[in-house]
Amino acid sequence: MKTTSTTNYRLVGILGGMGPAATIDLMQKVMAATSASRDQEHVPLVVWNVPQIPERVAAIGDSVAPSPATAMCAGAIALANAGAKAIGIACNTAHYWAEEIEAATGIPLIHIVDVALDELIASRKNQRTMLLATEGTHNAGIYAKRAAARGVNLETPDSHVQNTINECIALTKANELAKARALLVPQLEALSASGVETFLLGCTELPLVVRGTPFEAQSLDATAALARAIVAFSLGSVVTTSHKTKRNPHLGDQVA
Amino acid sequence: MKTTSTTNYRLVGILGGMGPAATIDLMQKVMAATSASRDQEHVPLVVWNVPQIPERVAAIGDSVAPSPATAMCAGAIALANAGAKAIGIACNTAHYWAEEIEAATGIPLIHIVDVALDELIASRKNQRTMLLATEGTHNAGIYAKRAAARGVNLETPDSHVQNTINECIALTKANELAKARALLVPQLEALSASGVETFLLGCTELPLVVRGTPFEAQSLDATAALARAIVAFSLGSVVTTSHKTKRNPHLGDQVA
Repeated sequence: MKTTSTTNYRLVGILGGMGPAATIDLMQKVMAATSASRDQEHVPLVVWNVPQIPERVAAIGDSVAPSPATAMCAGAIALANAGAKAIGIACNTAHYWAEEIEAATGIPLIHIVDVALDELIASRKNQRTMLLATEGTHNAGIYAKRAAARGVNLETPDSHVQNTINECIALTKANELAKARALLVPQLEALSASGVETFLLGCTELPLVVRGTPFEAQSLDATAALARAIVAFSLGSVVTTSHKTKRNPHLGDQVA
Repeated sequence: MKTTSTTNYRLVGILGGMGPAATIDLMQKVMAATSASRDQEHVPLVVWNVPQIPERVAAIGDSVAPSPATAMCAGAIALANAGAKAIGIACNTAHYWAEEIEAATGIPLIHIVDVALDELIASRKNQRTMLLATEGTHNAGIYAKRAAARGVNLETPDSHVQNTINECIALTKANELAKARALLVPQLEALSASGVETFLLGCTELPLVVRGTPFEAQSLDATAALARAIVAFSLGSVVTTSHKTKRNPHLGDQVA
């Protein structure tokens, strides 16, 4: 998707570091979604790529584990103080604390699940779709609740596949992409053979694993959806995309 | 180069956006220079990736062209206010205003030329080295002055090669890497045949162009040198690198 360029750009904050590779991937996808012939036509971003945040998956539903909310809110506030007009979070699981983060900053959050569902509904509405995500994202219903509200059915992997996904995510965070790919591809082959038509990549590490595999075209990448929404927000009110010409509906009315 | 990990990390600010691809490249090289097995062991970065800065090359030595200094200082101050303990600039030409930026923030600048010369002196001291950079970097002597002070001789390309480099840099900023590569490689072949042993990549767009070509090993990448120095700074005082075990000498005594 390419967007029309304009001289009016709004600064967007990216709350990242969860992990750093996923943050860089989101930044690259923002560039890829931008039509620019020189530096000044690229979207302005301020990025909090600070990975010293307690583990997200461990903290969901566990009152003993340290909560990442304080560190994430501090990062989001730093982004707002730096002048960001909206925030995107480069981590699906972290959206468990989305309302808290949005409330702490006073600027709108571009919610990764909403924009991913926008694209799923627009382009793959009738396909059998499986959500690939962390256990935290599944257990907390981060996708399921919003999908149900919009009439979208998302399948979830069985525990064997989920264990592989957990391992792939950890390997990606440890810079071990080739190992992660070798584990994931056979699982996707089996799922595809069993009738799954679309893999919704609902963890920001997973697009890195799927990239370059035969399952890239069969995947809907939530990170890429977030990138496109960030570009649309930065460029202002009217943006022509492949499936809509309208203001992003998830930004509320706080935007100037 | 791998560094030892520790739990004491200092936040480093990256002044980027000149261009965004070079900024992302620096972030990737910071990751590559870090030994991490999980998110929390990666170096914390806050990144000002805001490309709406007047052209740097045009502004050097031109009193009429708009100066980028105000916009760059504003970005650097935003990084310092966000808690950065040092700043790296993901653009060689922008170092023309290095002293101004450092003075505006009150935190040390990790100077890309100093750390690139460190690596050049350590590993390629007696090689015929040519600086590949923007015209602004050449004309302002951004490398030449510091190299001369350390007894390093850097050759400069003739005007024909320089024109090609200018074009390659512009193509990179416009996401046209393949075209840039097709232009640059024959020039590097000819220079190499004429006896140039090392290409010092003194423009942050050029490592993107040289990557994957036969001239990667023959190049000293100033961006990678800056990335290694950022990791060393973030990890604190004692860092073992391939060529030195000491505190980075360019950080002054302002660091806690």
